[in-house]
Amino acid sequence: MERMTECDRGFPPAEYQGRVAALQHRMTLAGLDALLLTTPADVFYVTGFLTRFWESPARPWFVIVPADGDPIAVIPSIGADLMRRTWVTDIRTWDAPHPADDGVSLLAATLREVVPEHGKIGLPMGAETHLRMPLADYGSVLNMVAPRAIVDATAVMHRVREVKSEAEIRKIRNACRVADAAFARVPEFAGAGRPLDEVFRDFQIALLQEGADWVSYVAGGAARGGYGDVISPADARPLQPNDVLMLDTGAVRDGYFCDFNRNFAVGHAEDAARRAHAALFAATETAIAAVRPGMSAAELHRIISGALVAEGATPCAGRLGHGLGLTLTEWPSLTPLDHTLLREDMVLAIEPGVEIAPGRIMVHEENIVIRATHAELLSSRASANLPVLT
Amino acid sequence: MERMTECDRGFPPAEYQGRVAALQHRMTLAGLDALLLTTPADVFYVTGFLTRFWESPARPWFVIVPADGDPIAVIPSIGADLMRRTWVTDIRTWDAPHPADDGVSLLAATLREVVPEHGKIGLPMGAETHLRMPLADYGSVLNMVAPRAIVDATAVMHRVREVKSEAEIRKIRNACRVADAAFARVPEFAGAGRPLDEVFRDFQIALLQEGADWVSYVAGGAARGGYGDVISPADARPLQPNDVLMLDTGAVRDGYFCDFNRNFAVGHAEDAARRAHAALFAATETAIAAVRPGMSAAELHRIISGALVAEGATPCAGRLGHGLGLTLTEWPSLTPLDHTLLREDMVLAIEPGVEIAPGRIMVHEENIVIRATHAELLSSRASANLPVLT
Repeated sequence: MERMTECDRGFPPAEYQGRVAALQHRMTLAGLDALLLTTPADVFYVTGFLTRFWESPARPWFVIVPADGDPIAVIPSIGADLMRRTWVTDIRTWDAPHPADDGVSLLAATLREVVPEHGKIGLPMGAETHLRMPLADYGSVLNMVAPRAIVDATAVMHRVREVKSEAEIRKIRNACRVADAAFARVPEFAGAGRPLDEVFRDFQIALLQEGADWVSYVAGGAARGGYGDVISPADARPLQPNDVLMLDTGAVRDGYFCDFNRNFAVGHAEDAARRAHAALFAATETAIAAVRPGMSAAELHRIISGALVAEGATPCAGRLGHGLGLTLTEWPSLTPLDHTLLREDMVLAIEPGVEIAPGRIMVHEENIVIRATHAELLSSRASANLPVLT
Repeated sequence: MERMTECDRGFPPAEYQGRVAALQHRMTLAGLDALLLTTPADVFYVTGFLTRFWESPARPWFVIVPADGDPIAVIPSIGADLMRRTWVTDIRTWDAPHPADDGVSLLAATLREVVPEHGKIGLPMGAETHLRMPLADYGSVLNMVAPRAIVDATAVMHRVREVKSEAEIRKIRNACRVADAAFARVPEFAGAGRPLDEVFRDFQIALLQEGADWVSYVAGGAARGGYGDVISPADARPLQPNDVLMLDTGAVRDGYFCDFNRNFAVGHAEDAARRAHAALFAATETAIAAVRPGMSAAELHRIISGALVAEGATPCAGRLGHGLGLTLTEWPSLTPLDHTLLREDMVLAIEPGVEIAPGRIMVHEENIVIRATHAELLSSRASANLPVLT
């Protein structure tokens, strides 16, 4: 495919201003005087600060969204240069790592400045979140900002982040195009006799060649009659005739992920695999046709699961899809227990899985965006028939 | 380079048994009845559970090391198949994500089973750690295991993990060899006129071709008279004659990282860049010659910093090196404030940096292992003179 150009990079400040305004609106409704963010995705979302340096666990990074006004970055000085290239202007730094005070007093002072004495600070503490700073330091911050309280703000972040702007959707679509082009090249490097780890390596190379900035996730499996799981790294076992090969990727382009997979039969597609693939394809068609704003995640799960059963297949336990965008997976989870409302411009992975035999599964995945009256595919639709690698 | 073979994969159970015994020894000294681990590196360290699926923030994963006996995995059922392929036999699963109880009651029940009522559970809470589970769920676990206390166990994990076994050192050396081979190929794809983002992409492809399982980190910079920082992703600006180009990588092979960089002059090496490179090279020589077990991280920092000053250079603020292995960077940090004792078989990145002009720096990095009487290079030594890309 043609290389995408630089003009698809980043966002104008208005995009971030809109995000912050949406957060501040929900913060006001929730009675929050500030929001404290610590994870790569949350920090990237409000600032545009994009770096792979999060891979180093050495330093915590903080962004504070006050109830009014622009975000404040409280970060290690090593990141000041890059943060200054974002729209953020209030950047406070310390020399990290600092064993006695790793940003704790600077963070606490900033929170005390921004939040009234009896005010509330929101922090994402709920499902699919974590606090990316040492827990002992968090305890110190709690003490230093008292009597201010720190309360859960998961819903504030989730309700804003889960609805994607058109600019974000464009970026996820670009990431999907990269993966589409790489999946189209799988027959070039996968086939009987090729070790699975070589296939994984070549797939990552293809993703980079097709325009991924980096490849944060590749997984898959290969076995006869279905693979055992969908999260394993590759071993060196050569692909065998009649194997089902699955490759799954989270390729990243400009900070946004795709997350979808493709299945292939090696040499010859056995009946059970073809039937499973057909059921997965049909259930995905049903989900894409049915999904609408106002439906819950649990309802969409029921639709996918029901479609698999109607095809005579046994749905996998566990979720049958999820959100995505700034991370490989985002809430909601398509399970019977997740009653999150699906909303217009949410991006989802529709991911039906079937158990072919005990411990043998096949999984199918597409990325879509929920529009008012239909679902729009972001990945190119898989072929209806299980493709055979010859 | 020749592709490494499958026989370099994984560890025998004895390796993990040794790790757990070392942890249990320190746990006993610290009065801990169990250790609770939640991060990819800590879980991989005691179990061998290696997956890129941590990229999905949706699910927490737990491993408990009891004071006696083998580790217990308390994990989402999606990981059971892969965990069963490790040496761990006690694997307890729940169907995650579960909005009402995402492993909380199973984790608490396991901790209550393993830890006496007035016992202590250790959890890494200190510098360079974080808790990879929702903070609200951690609060619930705290309540459910009471009167058992959860206390900081950073030192227990750090003192054991920081000393590498010969098998681990071999894996880090293998990762370094991958990067060595990729750095040797930089002249093939970097030179005047080539956009920096294309260079980053080709460098990642080269790392994969040379044997990286995946590329968790690439950063760098390119500018005349030194780059602005060392953590930025690439932009599309073409390399210019007289630029200094730096590429830095954390390539991963079998779960272990290398972390070193290389500098290049584009077309022609200006005097200031050549002088800076010579000072960096000399300071690294001095550090490699001087580092010994029993020295502190702060002392090694002083040696590197002093050597730069002796060369007439201005050392960068911030750390001048760090540990590495299971993550891109590990403690200790070579700063004036980190008094961690350097020990035999610790693996370090020696990373002097100099400020050439305000906001213009150059950084040099090698990976070594500290032996009883000398330092052993794991990366191939950079050339003494700044190489020129013609």
